Amino acid sequence: MKGKVWTLAQKYEGEPSIRNFKLVEEDIDENLKEGEVICEAVYLSVDPYMRFFANDVGDVVKGEQVAKVVRSKNPDFEVGSLVLGSFGWRSLTKVSDLSIMRPIPNLGGLSPSLAIGALGMPGLTAYFGVLDVLKVKPGQTFVVTAAAGATGSFAGQIAKLKGCKVIGFAGDKEKCDLIKEYGFDYAFNYKEVTLEQALSEAAPEGVDCYFDNVGGEFTNNMLSFMKTKGRIAVCGSMSTYGMDDNQPIGPLPYHTMLKKTLTVQAFLIYHYTAEWPAALNEMVQWVKEGKIKYQETITDGFDNMVDAFIGLFKGTNIGKAVVKC
Amino acid sequence: MKGKVWTLAQKYEGEPSIRNFKLVEEDIDENLKEGEVICEAVYLSVDPYMRFFANDVGDVVKGEQVAKVVRSKNPDFEVGSLVLGSFGWRSLTKVSDLSIMRPIPNLGGLSPSLAIGALGMPGLTAYFGVLDVLKVKPGQTFVVTAAAGATGSFAGQIAKLKGCKVIGFAGDKEKCDLIKEYGFDYAFNYKEVTLEQALSEAAPEGVDCYFDNVGGEFTNNMLSFMKTKGRIAVCGSMSTYGMDDNQPIGPLPYHTMLKKTLTVQAFLIYHYTAEWPAALNEMVQWVKEGKIKYQETITDGFDNMVDAFIGLFKGTNIGKAVVKC
Repeated sequence: MKGKVWTLAQKYEGEPSIRNFKLVEEDIDENLKEGEVICEAVYLSVDPYMRFFANDVGDVVKGEQVAKVVRSKNPDFEVGSLVLGSFGWRSLTKVSDLSIMRPIPNLGGLSPSLAIGALGMPGLTAYFGVLDVLKVKPGQTFVVTAAAGATGSFAGQIAKLKGCKVIGFAGDKEKCDLIKEYGFDYAFNYKEVTLEQALSEAAPEGVDCYFDNVGGEFTNNMLSFMKTKGRIAVCGSMSTYGMDDNQPIGPLPYHTMLKKTLTVQAFLIYHYTAEWPAALNEMVQWVKEGKIKYQETITDGFDNMVDAFIGLFKGTNIGKAVVKC
Repeated sequence: MKGKVWTLAQKYEGEPSIRNFKLVEEDIDENLKEGEVICEAVYLSVDPYMRFFANDVGDVVKGEQVAKVVRSKNPDFEVGSLVLGSFGWRSLTKVSDLSIMRPIPNLGGLSPSLAIGALGMPGLTAYFGVLDVLKVKPGQTFVVTAAAGATGSFAGQIAKLKGCKVIGFAGDKEKCDLIKEYGFDYAFNYKEVTLEQALSEAAPEGVDCYFDNVGGEFTNNMLSFMKTKGRIAVCGSMSTYGMDDNQPIGPLPYHTMLKKTLTVQAFLIYHYTAEWPAALNEMVQWVKEGKIKYQETITDGFDNMVDAFIGLFKGTNIGKAVVKC
């Protein structure tokens, strides 16, 4: 069997571009040992964080996928069943190390693509960021950036469910309209209004909780709009992903942090694995009851993965970006 | 009666110097209304944070003092009793607003100067920073900067009491010797060894808890030596107090914060007032039992307050800097 795989052709400098990637063919040995399986990609995830997980030329680009078992010598993974695999950008994967694969969780009949989206890593990130890191309380003012993205849109909706006033920032009118539909109290296009304009309208009282997907200058500005004892959940830093990794970073803005006694907490959902199943059950319920909505931007074809990935940095996707094989 | 008062003669630019201050005489009207008292300074505190609390020319420099009641029309404050007052840098203070004054707490017979030092704001800052913000656990690796200072030396000793491995950074040999005497496991002169040299010896496993009094470049470097899920308590930022407040700050160091999922929390003890009495009782016990040691650098004479204050930024004090009248 022959599979296809995206590798790093050139190290990243600034934003990812087509020159960074190379599509190569791979021979898959069909002779399986006991326990081994071969999986075929069905839905592949593209996420901004992937920018950091292929550093050397020739590395396979990292990432999760929903895949179908097509050959099996493992009774736990029958041919035809769906799995969630950390296989990287591969169309066909022979799996010996079972730790990189697990059965797809019970999504209550919803689309399996959600296992890498609203009901997967991006959704869980929103869940633990809002509920554990920020510990939102009813009546609080909550701000989220990249608010129409897979994680941001979920985060804002969870905060809304919990009784917060929710303010989202996104990069175009279509995205702002979407999150208003999702029930956000305010949606601002950060390319058209300043933070000061937006928050003097939407949060003159200041911001309690900031779910930060972008970092950089936007976040530096946000600090002065936080309330005393405000909390910032550091989920991502999209606005700086393109920067030279060696450029000097500023000192932590201790003056403002002390004046407001802020807490800035970075987190990863991989520290919450024990709590995933319960969280997922709750999230599936919310989605099925229509309390939380989601959207996917689906790109067709494994050969177009790079387009989908680059689109993340250009802001062309709405909701979760997924590649369908 | 005539009192003396230090006012701001010139706005701060960079480190405080004698040019920033002016000593002026003040007439105190001895005719007291019901409830009023006149207090004479006994011990005045100088602390780095004061740099931020006199902004306009003519402002009285802010600060706490231990003072003796010398005139009273208030039965709760008899002549001769000691009080703790937020009177600023004044030798004589007529108090009408009783909210800026309280009786000196019970220090179990220890020197009243401790009410503005080990058993006052600096000690309480150490207490809540170590126990509430960092939530240290036995066996953790704990780093503190400005480790021979009023707050730093207390913080390190509390962490040691709670079973941590304690590493202190200070600016000269005398200070390093002192904190070794206090029981710190390691003491480094940051002017003589790099952070990498120090921590490869003292904490090759990484740092769990960092009690930060200095900020700036030292702290940026420290981030990469933190363990996953490390916690940083932001107490002060001495190394940047001299910087132009308007200089642009760089992006926050989100890359490292995310890689290590760090929490950076700024705090002020004024959010813990309800818990002060219990904390103070415990601290008095520790000091009386010799479990926690302290040192004061006492400058004689109200006229020398500026010298004592400037000394903080030059690192000439050990332990708590106090001015005795």
